[in-house]
Amino acid sequence: MAEPLNIAIAGLGTVGAATGALLRADTDLLTRRAGRTLALRAVSARDRAKPRGFALDGVEWFDDPVAMARAPAIDVVVELIGGADGAARSVVETALAAGRHVVTANKALLAHHGNALARTAEAAGLVLAYEAAVAGGIPIIKALREGLAANDLTRVYGILNGTCNYILTTMRETGREFADVLAEAQKLGYAEADPSFDVDGVDAAHKLSILAAVAFGAAIDFEALRIEGIRHVSAADIAYADELGYRIKLLGIAHRSEIGLEQRVQPCMVPVASPIANVDGVFNAVVAEGSAVGMSFYQGRGAGAGPTASAVIADLIDIARGHRVATFNQPAASLAKPKAAPSERHRGAFYVRLMVVDRPGVIADVAAALRDELVSLESMLQRGRDPGEAVPVVLTTHETEEGAMLRALARIARLDAVLEPPRVIRIIEAL
Amino acid sequence: MAEPLNIAIAGLGTVGAATGALLRADTDLLTRRAGRTLALRAVSARDRAKPRGFALDGVEWFDDPVAMARAPAIDVVVELIGGADGAARSVVETALAAGRHVVTANKALLAHHGNALARTAEAAGLVLAYEAAVAGGIPIIKALREGLAANDLTRVYGILNGTCNYILTTMRETGREFADVLAEAQKLGYAEADPSFDVDGVDAAHKLSILAAVAFGAAIDFEALRIEGIRHVSAADIAYADELGYRIKLLGIAHRSEIGLEQRVQPCMVPVASPIANVDGVFNAVVAEGSAVGMSFYQGRGAGAGPTASAVIADLIDIARGHRVATFNQPAASLAKPKAAPSERHRGAFYVRLMVVDRPGVIADVAAALRDELVSLESMLQRGRDPGEAVPVVLTTHETEEGAMLRALARIARLDAVLEPPRVIRIIEAL
Repeated sequence: MAEPLNIAIAGLGTVGAATGALLRADTDLLTRRAGRTLALRAVSARDRAKPRGFALDGVEWFDDPVAMARAPAIDVVVELIGGADGAARSVVETALAAGRHVVTANKALLAHHGNALARTAEAAGLVLAYEAAVAGGIPIIKALREGLAANDLTRVYGILNGTCNYILTTMRETGREFADVLAEAQKLGYAEADPSFDVDGVDAAHKLSILAAVAFGAAIDFEALRIEGIRHVSAADIAYADELGYRIKLLGIAHRSEIGLEQRVQPCMVPVASPIANVDGVFNAVVAEGSAVGMSFYQGRGAGAGPTASAVIADLIDIARGHRVATFNQPAASLAKPKAAPSERHRGAFYVRLMVVDRPGVIADVAAALRDELVSLESMLQRGRDPGEAVPVVLTTHETEEGAMLRALARIARLDAVLEPPRVIRIIEAL
Repeated sequence: MAEPLNIAIAGLGTVGAATGALLRADTDLLTRRAGRTLALRAVSARDRAKPRGFALDGVEWFDDPVAMARAPAIDVVVELIGGADGAARSVVETALAAGRHVVTANKALLAHHGNALARTAEAAGLVLAYEAAVAGGIPIIKALREGLAANDLTRVYGILNGTCNYILTTMRETGREFADVLAEAQKLGYAEADPSFDVDGVDAAHKLSILAAVAFGAAIDFEALRIEGIRHVSAADIAYADELGYRIKLLGIAHRSEIGLEQRVQPCMVPVASPIANVDGVFNAVVAEGSAVGMSFYQGRGAGAGPTASAVIADLIDIARGHRVATFNQPAASLAKPKAAPSERHRGAFYVRLMVVDRPGVIADVAAALRDELVSLESMLQRGRDPGEAVPVVLTTHETEEGAMLRALARIARLDAVLEPPRVIRIIEAL
């Protein structure tokens, strides 16, 4: 039997505590699988007195996680503090400088500093592992980086934030509006008191930037992401989506084509028959499209103590087994920032909801604005009549360039009869 | 840069040809990911003259795949001949004896000889890799063995045969009977001229036996499997399933509980809202339920040249990267056959379709037979009336022991008014 793998955990919140508990609960199973003992040697957290749900006997306590990161006789530092900078970043940088492997669940840290950290780790022959940072209940980093390694991937997209998916699912099931459902989710503990990180798409964007790097063997380029959250999705849009055969999901989409790499987080309509349309509640899911494999689809719990701890320990077992894979699928020193695809060149179909005065000629004016930009209408719905009053009109287009669509919409928004800014949602031809 | 990985392929059917073509097409990409060149050095097939879709210049030709398996300067032998014995088995045994790693897509070989081959490989420090043997388009071996390695798995089940899934999907979409849809599938090339291996569940059973070994760290125990194919699924059952909120899928199920390991392939009803119910056509899918991760779900193409070649090359890249994992998730020398769960002790719900004479008292007799075995009825459907003539009656039960169910059914089958053997389909509470 090889030497134990000596582990230190920085941060004992729900994930840290679950990781510690798993490491100490089923040591036989983990040892058989890893080929060596996964030995929890040290932990660090703010409050030593707080109960963690597992025994800390024989485990060294550090008040200072950075001191722990350079303590002797540690092989791997598990960073579960969170945040792009501050203590989390110091712990990871200190651990790598001290020659420790790092396992982290910290998507913000990787989105902002992942390229530099990967270079540091690889130059020192160390592992920087982060399966838990994206959809903990889905081994998606491993699937993309190893399972699909033979494929030239063209598109990777997914539901990457469970809070948003829970809110959108509940809105659809109950017909209620965003603010109402958010308030309830906060009460139930499914959304944070400050929900911005989730509902404005930032958390999903962090995760997407990591997936894109792995899928396309590119440097993380978080600044290139376009991010739109779900605050503007209305009950009316969800009802129209249903009627048109779609579901609205907050998707992170990375798509490589001849115009460059497109990276976006935004609410999208997906056909109700596609697997991703039926991923509800707090589940996450990812679709990967590869040259050889075609479409493959992965679904699991996105967050929570158990799934995230499962991913952290899978990384620890990989390290124990001696697995070594380039952090972002090719050597970090060779990673370049991908050429960003200009968003106006993106091709796709669109859903548009207008609030217009119900009078003759309005639809003709709208149609003319689209025609002049060569945008082809696929369907038009005007439910109810109320001459002279405001009524909603819903359009869907055939595939078009986004730039043309936005120019047409700008003209439509200026029409006298159009009373509110048009609401636009992208339609995704999910496989 | 490390030395090239020298590869020989035995068998150039559609998968072998696709593997060769992929290896020779995108060598830069594969080299970046593997950290060394994947060099195709030798091939063997029956007919040298047949066009394969890729250039064989610089590649040594062997008429005898066994001679190739022990040829010098080869690191890995890829076995794509197929079949549990014969040339395929000789190639793999010879390659391992000669110190070559083996990559295979051969589920029959592993189901029947996997334990011995794994012991041989591990004793010699060699890799026996087989991602392509189960659901090629889904990296499920990697997901179970590595991605979910922190989990005690309780149940793994899936749609493992694309031909059966295509037939069942088409039966549902068209209302046609099995024989008719099978004949069409044969004409379209989706089913073999001799379809038995697929439609009788043998192919799915081979794959399930492998998944069970990986999921539960047990020796493969193919003999313990109960196997039932789809020949007896009728259009009527599919229509009733729809009405009851289920889909009928041929599932391979491995379930570990206190009574032992249950391994079965059989048609099952799954709730229409579960992800696996919506996997249609030639797609495969696997659900894994783990102690920490909860439910995770994987979907992709099951077979075909591209997905299978993708899996073969992923295994080659793992070997090139130096990955070493115990073949069936713990050292082969330590693997024991699992204790088989007695099937009569299995607990589950059931669908039963009876053809009975429409006269007073029949349902009371059926209900009494169930009551006497403590089987609780969940629903009863009798559509249409035709006094004195044959009418179908459909029942569903609450969870019960399978032994009790079978005893009740034996008594029901003996009732005068019951005209045909009862048709029984298991109902799965898919997550």
